[in-house]
Amino acid sequence: MTVRIGVIGTGAIGRDHARRINQVLAGGKVVALSDVNRASAEAVKADIAPDATVYATGEELIAAADVDAVLVTSWGATHEQYVLTAIAAGKPCFCEKPLATTAEGAKRIVDAEVAHGKRLVQVGFMRRYDAGYVALKEAVQTQTGAPIMVHAAHRNPTVPEAYTTPMAIHDTLIHEIDVFRWLLDDDYVEARVTFPRSCARTHAKLRDPQIVTLKTAKGVVINTEIFVNCHYGYDIQCEVVGEDGIARLPEPMAIQLRLGAKLQNAILTDWKDRFVASYDVELQDFLKAAANGTATGPTSWDGYMAAVTSDACVVGQEREGEAIAISYPARPALYA
Amino acid sequence: MTVRIGVIGTGAIGRDHARRINQVLAGGKVVALSDVNRASAEAVKADIAPDATVYATGEELIAAADVDAVLVTSWGATHEQYVLTAIAAGKPCFCEKPLATTAEGAKRIVDAEVAHGKRLVQVGFMRRYDAGYVALKEAVQTQTGAPIMVHAAHRNPTVPEAYTTPMAIHDTLIHEIDVFRWLLDDDYVEARVTFPRSCARTHAKLRDPQIVTLKTAKGVVINTEIFVNCHYGYDIQCEVVGEDGIARLPEPMAIQLRLGAKLQNAILTDWKDRFVASYDVELQDFLKAAANGTATGPTSWDGYMAAVTSDACVVGQEREGEAIAISYPARPALYA
Amino acid sequence: MTVRIGVIGTGAIGRDHARRINQVLAGGKVVALSDVNRASAEAVKADIAPDATVYATGEELIAAADVDAVLVTSWGATHEQYVLTAIAAGKPCFCEKPLATTAEGAKRIVDAEVAHGKRLVQVGFMRRYDAGYVALKEAVQTQTGAPIMVHAAHRNPTVPEAYTTPMAIHDTLIHEIDVFRWLLDDDYVEARVTFPRSCARTHAKLRDPQIVTLKTAKGVVINTEIFVNCHYGYDIQCEVVGEDGIARLPEPMAIQLRLGAKLQNAILTDWKDRFVASYDVELQDFLKAAANGTATGPTSWDGYMAAVTSDACVVGQEREGEAIAISYPARPALYA
Amino acid sequence: MTVRIGVIGTGAIGRDHARRINQVLAGGKVVALSDVNRASAEAVKADIAPDATVYATGEELIAAADVDAVLVTSWGATHEQYVLTAIAAGKPCFCEKPLATTAEGAKRIVDAEVAHGKRLVQVGFMRRYDAGYVALKEAVQTQTGAPIMVHAAHRNPTVPEAYTTPMAIHDTLIHEIDVFRWLLDDDYVEARVTFPRSCARTHAKLRDPQIVTLKTAKGVVINTEIFVNCHYGYDIQCEVVGEDGIARLPEPMAIQLRLGAKLQNAILTDWKDRFVASYDVELQDFLKAAANGTATGPTSWDGYMAAVTSDACVVGQEREGEAIAISYPARPALYA
Repeated sequence: MTVRIGVIGTGAIGRDHARRINQVLAGGKVVALSDVNRASAEAVKADIAPDATVYATGEELIAAADVDAVLVTSWGATHEQYVLTAIAAGKPCFCEKPLATTAEGAKRIVDAEVAHGKRLVQVGFMRRYDAGYVALKEAVQTQTGAPIMVHAAHRNPTVPEAYTTPMAIHDTLIHEIDVFRWLLDDDYVEARVTFPRSCARTHAKLRDPQIVTLKTAKGVVINTEIFVNCHYGYDIQCEVVGEDGIARLPEPMAIQLRLGAKLQNAILTDWKDRFVASYDVELQDFLKAAANGTATGPTSWDGYMAAVTSDACVVGQEREGEAIAISYPARPALYA
Repeated sequence: MTVRIGVIGTGAIGRDHARRINQVLAGGKVVALSDVNRASAEAVKADIAPDATVYATGEELIAAADVDAVLVTSWGATHEQYVLTAIAAGKPCFCEKPLATTAEGAKRIVDAEVAHGKRLVQVGFMRRYDAGYVALKEAVQTQTGAPIMVHAAHRNPTVPEAYTTPMAIHDTLIHEIDVFRWLLDDDYVEARVTFPRSCARTHAKLRDPQIVTLKTAKGVVINTEIFVNCHYGYDIQCEVVGEDGIARLPEPMAIQLRLGAKLQNAILTDWKDRFVASYDVELQDFLKAAANGTATGPTSWDGYMAAVTSDACVVGQEREGEAIAISYPARPALYA
Repeated sequence: MTVRIGVIGTGAIGRDHARRINQVLAGGKVVALSDVNRASAEAVKADIAPDATVYATGEELIAAADVDAVLVTSWGATHEQYVLTAIAAGKPCFCEKPLATTAEGAKRIVDAEVAHGKRLVQVGFMRRYDAGYVALKEAVQTQTGAPIMVHAAHRNPTVPEAYTTPMAIHDTLIHEIDVFRWLLDDDYVEARVTFPRSCARTHAKLRDPQIVTLKTAKGVVINTEIFVNCHYGYDIQCEVVGEDGIARLPEPMAIQLRLGAKLQNAILTDWKDRFVASYDVELQDFLKAAANGTATGPTSWDGYMAAVTSDACVVGQEREGEAIAISYPARPALYA
Repeated sequence: MTVRIGVIGTGAIGRDHARRINQVLAGGKVVALSDVNRASAEAVKADIAPDATVYATGEELIAAADVDAVLVTSWGATHEQYVLTAIAAGKPCFCEKPLATTAEGAKRIVDAEVAHGKRLVQVGFMRRYDAGYVALKEAVQTQTGAPIMVHAAHRNPTVPEAYTTPMAIHDTLIHEIDVFRWLLDDDYVEARVTFPRSCARTHAKLRDPQIVTLKTAKGVVINTEIFVNCHYGYDIQCEVVGEDGIARLPEPMAIQLRLGAKLQNAILTDWKDRFVASYDVELQDFLKAAANGTATGPTSWDGYMAAVTSDACVVGQEREGEAIAISYPARPALYA
């Protein structure tokens, strides 16, 4: 069976996902497109999905009879409404980060999906599909013994002036927040933020780097360095310390060179290259589940928990050094 | 456009390629199956390609009007006949190794394809599609300076008693023979085989390990250790020494563990895991070219050159320590 | 010139230092020995220093006319008195950790040395002499740009039941406390301790692991994991994050093995093996300075600062999560 | 006991060894110096060994009553005569490479020492004292199973025009020739040399790189790449393949840096830095044995075997691709 896909939002990521579905992956076909800028949707139709229909609104697209499932890749502020509409229509829906711009918005989606009674939403936390994290999780489950600490880093060579201190949480740490919940099969109870002196390359509105300390319900302490003007490269590090030993996220594949008096491997500099393979895997997972009228992978609840945790971290930035409690309602049975 | 594929030979590799086309890759569909053991073809139909027709013979399958392109994954001794039939039918044809069981057979395919005037055959040398070798080739072209030497190893933990000394060339070294021609953009002119003492774990009919030294037309010397009872793992090593520096094939991705007083990464033990991702890429490449009625990637000529080189290496095994000249006709323009 | 050395305290470390001076290093000779257990001193005389005189007390040894310089390797509680006596005698004195059992005691030594007006005391912080740390410091000064963060770990496979939570500071972290001051050329202003859940292998009187966060006057944040029941090995990790890049302490030299499906290097399990080479270097440094009637390397002030910082960390253990200010008087000019 | 040392030849290496004995190592003292250029010996006396007597000839120095043992660090062509004189005087003698400039000369020393009936000569093959090779030998003896192959490389960034093809054996490979005999506890029976195309940076009188293949009596095959214009650094590689696994010589200690989009370690560029620590160890070994009136470490026989093997390799260079047999008399019992 070929799942007929409608794509809402045909900017860079929407176009790229359309390409994946039509040119890389098995089991799906883009049949509908919509964008606030209609020309953008028409261009994707011309380049990638000639058989697709272009709709004036996301709502019309979702309502179209030949659309089996929906990709929400529009501007973040519109995610909530489209996801809620897709749930109302009973159509599987892949939503890029963020699920909603507020924790309350994410909670409304959770509530709607729970009311619907079946999973329909997959959130685009692609790291869970990265081969390195998958292998790391297996190592944590089978080799290191129960986890006790995580040492992590999220480093970016540079960010523009518009990038502010809270964005280090909402746009950057958000990936670690989700992937560590999944990696450890655990929930956060406390956040604390520590600021070293800021680096010379940072901007007026950004304290950089910062260290976020998260505690989990099981007592794991996670220290994540966020350093978005680290200059040397885009670098994601993660080390899990368990009862018996330590597992480390693999470096991206690189040729080892002996050159110019250096034993050297290239480090990536563009974040887009780091997890590019995982986008294929996450969308393939979506297509498979959608063929059965449901969703798999990261849930609305995961999106909500990421939002709740992010909010606590931002409070932690404002109250440097203070432990901020993270609270949330009981997990609905749908997400057990 | 969806390329309609016929698969001749539905053993392990044929079944796996059918799965790739129907469940993993975009742009193809298995519409025809054939196997000397009809039940095997029927099983693949049932499990993977319910819409496919099962044919009694490969020839009938190739002749079928709805078959756009052919996969030859049958027993090696039958490859030549099916590939020649596909060329006669003007249909793109992906052929697993070996292209033919003799250099003469491979040459007949080359001649037929040249006579046809357009590329139709892709040989299943999947290593050219491995991300590691692709990155290595790029490093050799852009960083190391012109290559001068290659140090390589092909190690297998163990082989059965039926595996004889010449099979170390025809079944094992064959991959290095092809991939180094491609990596260096060069041709072989001489082969020499050196035998250390055989390892304790080898069998009566197998001298193991052995070192094959190949010289190229450009003067590169390639030493490849073949050690198929190395015990510790399946391990492929390759280091290219150039004018300015050295590039090394990456190790397969692995979690670094600190465990039991060892800093350790797992080494693969099953060859099937080593290049598994490259099968997807090579077949995707085949589907794309077949959609245009042609073929890309490793050519019939490459298959022929591999056969000629293998034959020289086997002579070299018989005349240990002697330099065996490798000769072949001029390369047809079709493969320039 | 040969420096004539008296050794006070001939237990394991005293005996080992006597061996170094008489059998490994140039420029010194053990001429005097003393131990609360006279038989121990006599045994070192018999085995290592046949020409040495055994004295009943450390004070007599220090007073002996043919003793040029003193090694204080006795029980920690006696260090202060011997060092003060050596200063009073104007003799260079190498003192093993701790310089004194309290910050006040260390301060008395500082004051005595300052009053004497010339450096006479070297404290046995041997990590400053480790080739790895020396190379790391050079990298921090020349390659990484100014430091902003340090990520470190001090891991021991196991500790006995007698090892309590504060000992993780006084006996274990003490090395990091000193070596990071030296590495960063900086002073601490704040300490905070975070406890993950304790590991299953710990004891009733030990919370293990723990994470100590130190802030420096220049704004560097140092996170050090102390995990003394980590099981897998004795492992010292240190990574300095600077403005331009990151430098990492080298792993101890180890043979890389491909064995049993693992690419593996041995990790040490005994702390005594980790910095063994640095003892030679620190004592050679002492002999050279002592030949000129003075001392070099880690100072009394460094010993005092380590004591002050340790005390703050222990308070931090008692007030988990709280930032503990670290204060101390101005640095005397003698230690500028 | 302090061994009183006479140094014949006070050029760079003689001066450096004198410094070691007087300033670094325990148990020795330089009491006599001699050099064909007397001013050189006087300078070493002034700088390093003020109490030493300067002799007009090496023979007078050897004859001096207060000289217990001799270091021969003069011009290579004079080594044989001084070593023979030292043996005649019954004095332990450390001789830098080469023991003699011909195999016959080395054999005369062997014969003289055998006639004397006790070991007196240590040859300056310092790699046997390198911590990396020592660890590698232990790994080969305890972990890899019996060795079958060795893959090695000896790379130098550049050599002057005066360096000719045979010097790649006599001056460069000589170290591998000795250290592999020791590492494998084996003897060579055959040598073969293979030349790839020469690199662009080589000179008129030098074919570079070259690959020397040595076979041992136990059937081990050793391939060593010699590449003395490799440009990128001074790099010594060695990998031993055994029945059960593979052991690799450690890289020299280096700080791992993340800098400028590269994960990088420095590679040495000056050969003098590579084995500098092993000179201390070899001379300490000499002093210990000399204190007992004998010698230890690399023997005259080892020096002779290195000469015999080198000669075969040079013949192999002249007869490219040909297997050159290596023959030598039975090993005298003194060197069992």
